[in-house]
Amino acid sequence: MAGFDQATALRAASTASAGAAYDSAFEADLDPQWSIGGKLHGGYLLAVLGRAACLAADNPDHPHPVAASAHFLRAPAPGEAQVVAEMLRSGRTVAQVRTTLLSDGQRCVEGLVTVGTFHGEPWWDGVPAVELPPIEACPRLPVEGPGFEVPLMGPVAEHLDPAVMGWAVGRPSGHGELRGWVDFDDDRAPDPLSLLMLVDALPPATFDLGVSGWVPTLELTCHVRAVPAPGPLAVRQRVRHIAGGRVDEECDVWDSTGRLVATGHQLAGLRIPDGRAPAIRR
Amino acid sequence: MAGFDQATALRAASTASAGAAYDSAFEADLDPQWSIGGKLHGGYLLAVLGRAACLAADNPDHPHPVAASAHFLRAPAPGEAQVVAEMLRSGRTVAQVRTTLLSDGQRCVEGLVTVGTFHGEPWWDGVPAVELPPIEACPRLPVEGPGFEVPLMGPVAEHLDPAVMGWAVGRPSGHGELRGWVDFDDDRAPDPLSLLMLVDALPPATFDLGVSGWVPTLELTCHVRAVPAPGPLAVRQRVRHIAGGRVDEECDVWDSTGRLVATGHQLAGLRIPDGRAPAIRR
Repeated sequence: MAGFDQATALRAASTASAGAAYDSAFEADLDPQWSIGGKLHGGYLLAVLGRAACLAADNPDHPHPVAASAHFLRAPAPGEAQVVAEMLRSGRTVAQVRTTLLSDGQRCVEGLVTVGTFHGEPWWDGVPAVELPPIEACPRLPVEGPGFEVPLMGPVAEHLDPAVMGWAVGRPSGHGELRGWVDFDDDRAPDPLSLLMLVDALPPATFDLGVSGWVPTLELTCHVRAVPAPGPLAVRQRVRHIAGGRVDEECDVWDSTGRLVATGHQLAGLRIPDGRAPAIRR
Repeated sequence: MAGFDQATALRAASTASAGAAYDSAFEADLDPQWSIGGKLHGGYLLAVLGRAACLAADNPDHPHPVAASAHFLRAPAPGEAQVVAEMLRSGRTVAQVRTTLLSDGQRCVEGLVTVGTFHGEPWWDGVPAVELPPIEACPRLPVEGPGFEVPLMGPVAEHLDPAVMGWAVGRPSGHGELRGWVDFDDDRAPDPLSLLMLVDALPPATFDLGVSGWVPTLELTCHVRAVPAPGPLAVRQRVRHIAGGRVDEECDVWDSTGRLVATGHQLAGLRIPDGRAPAIRR
């Protein structure tokens, strides 16, 4: 089972094969383990783009992704893929990189990544930290999901608050919120790059509204706020609004010291079964 | 004074001059009125990219921006600018377009835009609508800002809740929240394209923490959720977190019927004066 670094590894490739418009080109081997119900995980793909951006910037002053936005065009197949990157600007405090993931010659994920570094303590915080039971009291999500396999739950250890697990036994709370402890199965420490994956790691919070099924991401943005301390991360995913076959969700991530280290926002497709009413309308 | 449509107008240009890598090229005339303290407004520039994406897609099935993300490389000068666009994919329900705004031959703003359409009523809402006094009870923000001019307040009429105006008289509330009614001075009706500007229209909510000064946007994403009804929009901008010289803010926009029509999230630079403590730490 490939850990995060192996699954997101990139090998430098010739830009000649990728067309002259690109500054850097890489080969990836997209790992089928990092998938849900047969589709590669969106946050995993964002992390692959983030790694490409950091490699393309190749600047010790800009080692980490700071902000990453991706629009998802089509689902890439597991296996060989190509990532191309173009430096847009390199400044004193940040640099910007355009990245594209291609599978079988087709563009699949297009991303913009601002890279830089982090310093300083929080000055003001308007996002009270999520409260979770101790990790020992939170059951780990299995690879066998609700009606489909979630291989991602192998390398990523997700221990959800039992209070938000009602959906697994047909009793969603109706609040549209999932929360729990997340770390890597192989104990790899969290870092800014892995936060790009982690802001999309929890199951869709729509499960907590009684809506199961695939939630294909249209757009996913991650703002990284700090280098996380070692240890499990506290993660909360909330549904904000569902209308017209689309849902937007927010995700906040705190490190083991309780510091907010990343936020994610995504817009995704969602099919509501005909005639289904929401569990609770807030 | 140029209204929104005139200020964001684009003229088709030859792609030959822009390089063969682009599907569409446009000329823009960036309007100095749409600026703050001498810098063109970030949401205005996002709307220019959104218009370019819709024109490039040129598809009646995809008339509106649905999700738009921009990374800001450098501030363009008012006046002549170029916008290039490349179709990344055109699908049944959405299409994706890559856009770049160039000024004086230099890339200034790089954006990804998913275009599509809207249908259906809200199914679930986890974002309670902001409560505001009647617009008559909310003073309109003047062009003369706190220490610098805000020409944007000419074409954009912002009527802020008096309860969040303490910063204007040296008494910020310390909650990091601004809210008010926003519409266009010339009564142009809101539409999805203008929402890309409106999610960045309020003054920085950092003013409400006693931190004035320029907040240069690094990344701004807007998720449009519906075609807004005519009439003034209720807009709320909140600070989420300040650390390491950066702030992330969220913005929610409701139409005159109380429906959530857009959300925005941005990461911006912020200089905290040495030794300054936050007004209130939540």
